Order: sequence, then C-alpha cells, then structure tokens
Amino acid sequence: MRIGFVGLGIMGSSMAENLIKAGFQVTVWNRTADKCRLLAEKGARVADSPRAVAECSDVVIAMMANPRAVESVRDGEEGIIAGLKPGTGYLDMSTVDAETSIESARLAHEKGVLFLEAPVSGSRQPAEAGTLIIMASGDRELYDRSLPALEKMGKKVLFLGDVGNAARMKLANNLVMSGMLTALCEGMALASGSGLDTAQFLDVLDSGAISNPMFRLKGPQIAANKEFPTAFPLKHMQKDLRLALRLAEEVGQPLFVTAAVNELYKKALAEGFGEFDSAAVSRIIRK
Amino acid sequence: MRIGFVGLGIMGSSMAENLIKAGFQVTVWNRTADKCRLLAEKGARVADSPRAVAECSDVVIAMMANPRAVESVRDGEEGIIAGLKPGTGYLDMSTVDAETSIESARLAHEKGVLFLEAPVSGSRQPAEAGTLIIMASGDRELYDRSLPALEKMGKKVLFLGDVGNAARMKLANNLVMSGMLTALCEGMALASGSGLDTAQFLDVLDSGAISNPMFRLKGPQIAANKEFPTAFPLKHMQKDLRLALRLAEEVGQPLFVTAAVNELYKKALAEGFGEFDSAAVSRIIRK
Amino acid sequence: MRIGFVGLGIMGSSMAENLIKAGFQVTVWNRTADKCRLLAEKGARVADSPRAVAECSDVVIAMMANPRAVESVRDGEEGIIAGLKPGTGYLDMSTVDAETSIESARLAHEKGVLFLEAPVSGSRQPAEAGTLIIMASGDRELYDRSLPALEKMGKKVLFLGDVGNAARMKLANNLVMSGMLTALCEGMALASGSGLDTAQFLDVLDSGAISNPMFRLKGPQIAANKEFPTAFPLKHMQKDLRLALRLAEEVGQPLFVTAAVNELYKKALAEGFGEFDSAAVSRIIRK
Amino acid sequence: MRIGFVGLGIMGSSMAENLIKAGFQVTVWNRTADKCRLLAEKGARVADSPRAVAECSDVVIAMMANPRAVESVRDGEEGIIAGLKPGTGYLDMSTVDAETSIESARLAHEKGVLFLEAPVSGSRQPAEAGTLIIMASGDRELYDRSLPALEKMGKKVLFLGDVGNAARMKLANNLVMSGMLTALCEGMALASGSGLDTAQFLDVLDSGAISNPMFRLKGPQIAANKEFPTAFPLKHMQKDLRLALRLAEEVGQPLFVTAAVNELYKKALAEGFGEFDSAAVSRIIRK
Repeated sequence: MRIGFVGLGIMGSSMAENLIKAGFQVTVWNRTADKCRLLAEKGARVADSPRAVAECSDVVIAMMANPRAVESVRDGEEGIIAGLKPGTGYLDMSTVDAETSIESARLAHEKGVLFLEAPVSGSRQPAEAGTLIIMASGDRELYDRSLPALEKMGKKVLFLGDVGNAARMKLANNLVMSGMLTALCEGMALASGSGLDTAQFLDVLDSGAISNPMFRLKGPQIAANKEFPTAFPLKHMQKDLRLALRLAEEVGQPLFVTAAVNELYKKALAEGFGEFDSAAVSRIIRK
Repeated sequence: MRIGFVGLGIMGSSMAENLIKAGFQVTVWNRTADKCRLLAEKGARVADSPRAVAECSDVVIAMMANPRAVESVRDGEEGIIAGLKPGTGYLDMSTVDAETSIESARLAHEKGVLFLEAPVSGSRQPAEAGTLIIMASGDRELYDRSLPALEKMGKKVLFLGDVGNAARMKLANNLVMSGMLTALCEGMALASGSGLDTAQFLDVLDSGAISNPMFRLKGPQIAANKEFPTAFPLKHMQKDLRLALRLAEEVGQPLFVTAAVNELYKKALAEGFGEFDSAAVSRIIRK
Repeated sequence: MRIGFVGLGIMGSSMAENLIKAGFQVTVWNRTADKCRLLAEKGARVADSPRAVAECSDVVIAMMANPRAVESVRDGEEGIIAGLKPGTGYLDMSTVDAETSIESARLAHEKGVLFLEAPVSGSRQPAEAGTLIIMASGDRELYDRSLPALEKMGKKVLFLGDVGNAARMKLANNLVMSGMLTALCEGMALASGSGLDTAQFLDVLDSGAISNPMFRLKGPQIAANKEFPTAFPLKHMQKDLRLALRLAEEVGQPLFVTAAVNELYKKALAEGFGEFDSAAVSRIIRK
Repeated sequence: MRIGFVGLGIMGSSMAENLIKAGFQVTVWNRTADKCRLLAEKGARVADSPRAVAECSDVVIAMMANPRAVESVRDGEEGIIAGLKPGTGYLDMSTVDAETSIESARLAHEKGVLFLEAPVSGSRQPAEAGTLIIMASGDRELYDRSLPALEKMGKKVLFLGDVGNAARMKLANNLVMSGMLTALCEGMALASGSGLDTAQFLDVLDSGAISNPMFRLKGPQIAANKEFPTAFPLKHMQKDLRLALRLAEEVGQPLFVTAAVNELYKKALAEGFGEFDSAAVSRIIRK
C-alpha cells in the first residue's frame, strides 16, 4: 500500500516517520518545505502539491491543524481530492468538526473515493512512540484496508460508525481532558495559595482513585507554573472546546462547567499562551 | 495502645473494624446504638458517651460528618475532651475546615492532650480494604505514636506539618476530584446526546493519558445515569466544595471552574440527591 | 416609496402595520398565508413570493427569525434578490450575525442593489407602538432614503457605519439585557428562598440607581414564576447569546458571566421554554 | 432625640452631617479622630469611645464596613452595648450578614435596649443628598421612633419585618446590582472589541427598556476603563457577593451566574482594585 501524508507538524512528522519505519512507501507534502526534507532523510518521497501526493498513493492521510487548513489541502486544483483516483482512500486524521468531515466524505464519494475520518487522542510523545488512540469513522472498507497502517501509529484503534462520530468522540474526550487539567490547576492554585507543599499535593492526588498519567506529567509543570513545553497546543484545546460547545448547542445540552473552562482557555489565548501547552491555562488561574 | 473510636458511619465502621482486626483494643461510641452492636460483635467494647470512650483510651479517634458533628462529640460534659487525660491523644479523622481543627487543637492543648487532624481520601471501598490515603497534621509526637494504627486504615500516610494543613489538603484534593467527576459527566452528556456509544466513550477515555480508577468505577454508573450507590455522599462533596471556596476567598484565589462545579452540586442537593454518591451530579447535568 | 415587507411574525406584523398606517404602499409576504390576510385587511397588498414582493417595491424589508430564515427568503429563484431591480434597496431588520449581513450586502451589491442591515431592540409592545430602537448599518444612501419609513417603526434610529456593525451592536445590547434578566431572576430566587416579600424586593430595586422599565415589567412575572407572555421569545435570546459568544471568540474576548447566562438559557430551552418570553429563564433558576 | 453616630467613613460622615443639618443633637465617634474633627466643625459633639457615645444618646447609629468592625464597636467594655441604657435604641446601618444582626439584637435585648438593623442602598452621592434607600427590620417600636431621623438620610424607608430580613434584602439587591454592572462591562468589552463606538453603545442601552441611572453614571467610566472614582468600594461588593452566596447555600438555592460574578470580583480584588469603585471589575474583564 502506497501512502500519501499531507501535513507534517509536530504530530504529522512523527506519524509519517512511524509509517516509513514500518516499511510503507510514503510520499509527503507540507506547506513549508523544510519539514519535508527531514522526512526525506528518513526515506520519504516528496511531492510538490497535495494533488501530486494523491496521484501516486492508494491512501492519502491528512494531518492538519484546523478545518480551514484541511480545506486548503483538500480542495481546489492542487488539492488531494483532485488527485485521488476512484477506489483509493482519503483518510483525514486532523481534529475537525463533524461538518467538515461530512463535507470531506461527500467530496470523496463524488469521485468514487472512500473516506475515513480518524482523529487521534494523544500528543507529541504518543505520536513519536506510535501509541496514539485513533478514533475512526466513515467507510468501513477503508478502515479495514488501512488498519495495518493505523496500527503503526496508534496502540488502540476504534471504529465508531458513521462519519462525524469520530470528530464528536474526540471533542467529548478533549472536553474531559481540559476539565481535568483546569481542575488540577485550580486545586494547585488553592494548595499553593494556602501554603501547602505542592509536591505533597501531587503525591496525594497520585495516591488515590484519581491518579492518572496526565497529572503525573503535567502536575510538576503546573506546580512550577513557568515552562509548559508544548505537547498539545493551548490554542488547539480552545478550538476543541469551542467545537464541543457548538455541538452541545446543536443537541441542546447545557454544559455549565465546560463553558467556564472555555472562558479560561479564551483568556489564556488572549494573554498570549496559545502556542504553549494546554496546561499553560495555569498561568491565568494562579493569582 | 488502647484506641477509642467515636463515629461509626459508612467510613468509621470499616476503619474501626480494621483496627480491631489488627489486634488493637477498641472502645466505640455512636449516636445511634445499632452501629455499636455490629462492632461489638467483632470485638469492640462499647461506651455510653464520647467522654466514657476517652476515659479508657490512650488515643481517641473521631470520624464525624461535619464540623457541627465534631463539636457535638468533642465539647461539653460528655465530650471527648472532658474525658481525656493529660498525655493522651485526640485524633480527628473527620473532614472539617481548618478553623475547626485549630479550635480542637487549642482545646486539647489546654488539657495537656496532643492533637492530630487526619482526614482521609477515599470512600467506602478503601475504608473497608484499609487502603485510604491519610493526611495528618498537628502534633508530630502523636503522629509518630499513632502511625501503627493509621497504617492499618490507610495504604499511604502523610505528615503535612501544622494543624490545619491536612484539612486544606483534603479540600484541594476533593476540589480536583469533583472537577474531574463533573468533567466526566459533561463529556458523557455530550457523547450520549450526540448519539455516540457511551461504552466506546469510556474505552477512549481509559485508553489515554487521563485513564484513572475513578473513571473506571464511576463511568458505567454515569453512562447508565440511574443508580449511584453511595461511596462518598454528594452532600459531603458539596460541603467540601463550599469549604474549598471559602478557603479560596480567604487567600484571594479566584476559582471560576470550581464555582460552577459547586453550583451544580448545590443544584443536585436541592433536587434531592444529597444522600446519593457524589457522581449523582450526573442526574442534573444530563438533559 | 413602495415598500415590500417579508416576514410577518410577532414583530414583523406590527411593524408592517405601522408603515401602512403612515400611508406607505406596502406589499407583504409570509410563509404562512393567514398572517398576510390580517395585513391585507389593514390595506396591504399580498404577493405570492419574496421575489414578487421585490419586483413591485423600491425597498424590501425582511424581518425573519434567524440567519437560515433570512437566506430562505433572500436566495434562490423566488428570493428577494432575484426580484430587486438595480437602484432599489434591501433592508434586513432581522437579528442575524454579521456574516449573514455581509453576505446579504455582497449579493445585493452584485445586482446593483443598496443594502442596509437594521436590527431592532425592543419586543412586541414597542413594535406595536412604533417605539423600537433601530440600529442601522451599511449603505448610507439607503439609510437616508429609508429614514422616513424607519421613523414610523422606531422612536430612535441610529446609523452605525459599516455593514455588520448593527448586528454586533444588537448582540452586545441583548447580552446586557439577558445578563440583567438573569441577575433579576437570581436575586428574586434568593429573596424568595430567604423568606422575603417579593413585592418589597421589587420596590427596593425600583427605588435606587438600577431602576429600569424592564424590571418593572418583568419583575412581577418573575415573582409569580408562572406565566411569561412572550414579548421576546427565549429561543431568540439564546440564539443571540450564542452569536454574541461566537463574536467574542472571534475577537478574543473572554466573557465568563455571559457564558454562564448562556448555559442557563440553553437549559431553559432544553426544558421546553423556548417559545415563552426570555424572562422564563426564571423557571429553571428558582429552586 | 439625642443621636449617637459611630463610624464616619465615606457614607457615615455624610449621613451624620444630614442629621446635624436637620437639627438633631449628634454625638460622634470614629476610630481615626480626624473624621470627628470635620463633623465637629459642622456642629457634632465628639465622644472618646463608642460607649461614651451611647451613654449620652437616645439612639445610637453604627455605620461600619463589615461584621468584624461592627463587633469592634458593639462589644466589650468600651462598646456601644455597654453604654446604652434600658429603653434606648441601637440602630445598625452597616451592611452585615443576618447572623451578625441577630446577635446584635440578642445583646441589645439582654440590656433592655431596642434594636433595628437598617442597611442602605446607594453610595456616596445619595448619602450626601440624603436620598438613600433604607431597609429596616427588627423592633417596630424603634423603627417608628427613629423614622424622623431615617427620613433625613433616605428618600425611601422600608420596614421589612424580623431582624435579619434587611440584611438579606440588601444582599439580594446588591446581587442584582453587581450582576447588572458585570453584564454592562461584558457588553462593553464585546462592543469595544468588535470595533463599535462605545458612546453609541451606551446610547443604544439608554434608549430601551433597560435604561437605568447606574448605566448612565458608570457607563462612560467603563467605556474609558481608567478612573473609577469610588462610590461603593469593590471590596464591599465582593463581601456582599460572598454573603449572598453563603445565604444561597443555606437556603439551597443554586446561583450559577452570581457565582461567576463573584469570581470576577475576587479576581479584581486579587489584582488590587478593592478600594476602587465596584465598576472597576471592568478592569479585569476587558481584554
């Protein structure tokens, strides 16, 4: 199976590299060419447009930052859809709203191309280690065909049914994640402000039923409240919160706490922390 | 060491039983006598007042539901303080505000009695299994003396310094726990309202960096949204949220998300879910 | 000036009637025909499509419930744009987002038609009395030309500059209004729950610096908490809150309180109060 | 009637002065003596303790900043209660919680003294002009006796029944006021951030059903977002929000929006705006 890979950001680069390591023939494209060069050194072919990637691939994977970026590589004369042949597959692993994926599916189907949306849970480290959680929905046939590749990028791959479901699942997952991060930051702020030892606080949290790997990783960063090396950028978390709240409005579901979490992320974004890790919301919570 | 145990609710009964099993001589008292009978069957002596418990103990442990209940067994002619002899110890394992513990310490010290506050993290199951997290602060000497008993009730025992610190740590811990529960409930509400499979949603949550035992235990209950067998009563969680927000006001720390969480718990309380498990906040979140 | 009027809901009917009373020749269209009959009795001509209205008018006014409804009468072969001749004017008085108005302006300009967005503040009563506040923005020439008609519908008409500004002003205005209503409802809930006399509470509010006509009108309804005769439907207020929060996200402005207000309105909508007056948010606030 | 006046802050000084102007014999005391000198110049007698004030008065009025300050002038050997003779009256016009007033009533009654709590609505200007709203509750006899004096300080005087009710009414009133101020600030932030003319925005608000004197006074200050001359200090508004939320917890009333308002006020306090006017909450809302 010849795989095309479009979008070589923090996540995409590592994911494409894992496919190369696994022996797949991978053709890449990225808006800025230097990212391509690094992949080429690992064995990737480099194409000069998303369309060119699609023309020489059985499956094209896109890994973009937001719906607009997805459209920019998908549509138009130099886009992925224009290059794909009937019977091939288009696999979008970006985190986008369900509407974008539904439109991608429509455009793919018009050309006789199969479509799968497959957003991931996990950030830089799991992307490098090939231990992402991959949530796929759309054409089952493409899922079955792509599984050998998906399993090189993720430790867990789930098929969730109709196209749109994976996007929705990702949003619900990130809603919980951002809520947990914010709860940790507020707890830390209270502990620290009350004169408690923050290392003991993290020890207490890690000793009970709420112990989890994210707290172990981010807890010390939040306690220090200075450096937040970017695993999952804060601006992307805020985007997911926005999309989650929009979905909630569509289905008539009030979300009082998530709405407050979103405002904190908006404030963090407004104060310039968008490129930091999503845990940097701590910077605007601590007094 | 002769141990007195006052307060045989869900938690206290199991904790006292673990002390009896470990071979300590335990004298108990409870406001309603039937709880005492059950402990007597396991080997406890039964006294007819908190004071009487204190008169025949080297250390008296209290495990009450709230500050007022603590005062009701601590003060007055029939209270614990009245019965304790100089040199003995008073160990309050109830979750109360720092002020209550500071007053307890003052009263104990007036009588030459050592004091330790030692609230716990964990609910019914860890209480039964003797795997609570115990956060102690106050007189170090009493801590060292009581450690053999504390280790029969908890798997982790921490000494946190001055009296009041354990209360504050407990509040910060429960703040995080209630925030996580609410985030899970809101995520579940969105997943369910969007037509996603709730079992797959829990699987996704459990596959990534936020995987934690509480979600595994409460997740299926929240998905079903019917029965919430009480491990930690919702009314107690709301009390802890109230105390956490009061502490935050004292130290000048804004807590936007926790304030929203608290209102949800208040609403759940107002709608009659106070005796259910704290996860029953789900009942007022789901549309 | 021959005026077309499309959209005869609660507001539109009264506004069109005021134009007729003032002597304008008015041609109307509505999705359901019975509303047209009532206006015909007052002197309106009735056309059988939005396009037909436009073909016989110098200025067409649209007064629809939401962006989608605006598009449904604006676009397509039977839409307003299709019927307007170059040099005429299209005046949209619906409350919609700025993007919808900007698109309406673009479509109008393509045909050589002038465009003005002119949403209103005020509900049933001011619509009947011709005392609305009208916020207009877009083509100044059409504003000047339409002023005689606008002044029959509103007691205050403001020109706010570029198209989109009126929509944004309306959203900011309704944000404040919904915040005030919710504050009144929460204050009333606290007063009532604390055993205070609600009539005295309203008297106190009306005696000081926050005294305002809306509180005098809605206060007794909120005190009774039963009937909420619809002046401005709750579902429209929630739509405006949604659009206001979306605008705030675009300009990077956190709005903690408005986000909480929006969740209350979403909850009121989810519980079936969408067709009631926006003050019916009280129904889900009172315990 | 000889009146004692204890507490000569921004409000108290003006209120005492109005009593002097009306011809009452007024004896004053203040923690810092310079405030007394100013009143002495207008005709007040100056006593050297709250007790000394009480000993030469038929009614003592206290106007303090918070419950602790009330206790500091009420209790102890040099306090008001110690100086009052049976049959005289103690009239507390401070804004305090109901519990403090209930305790004041108990202490007064023990000495055969009548008690009235009578907090006010309105700030510096109405205090100077004698146009406060005065909410009184407690001993009706003292109310009737004091009415001639109360009417010199307020334009509206209400009797609300049992002691505690006035405190609760004041809190509910200030809850609404702070909610309105915050709504105005958030609306202004959105208007300004969206490029709207803030003067036009205030004009729109003032043209409709929500037009009110407070918006006319504070609106331009909030639009400028710089100077906030103190009429009602922000720290006092936050105190009232805290007490309102505490009362709401007691009566089981969720207040989602007020909880968010309170966190904004806490944040404003934490950032050093406590001595500014309560409208200075704008400083932490605007991006």
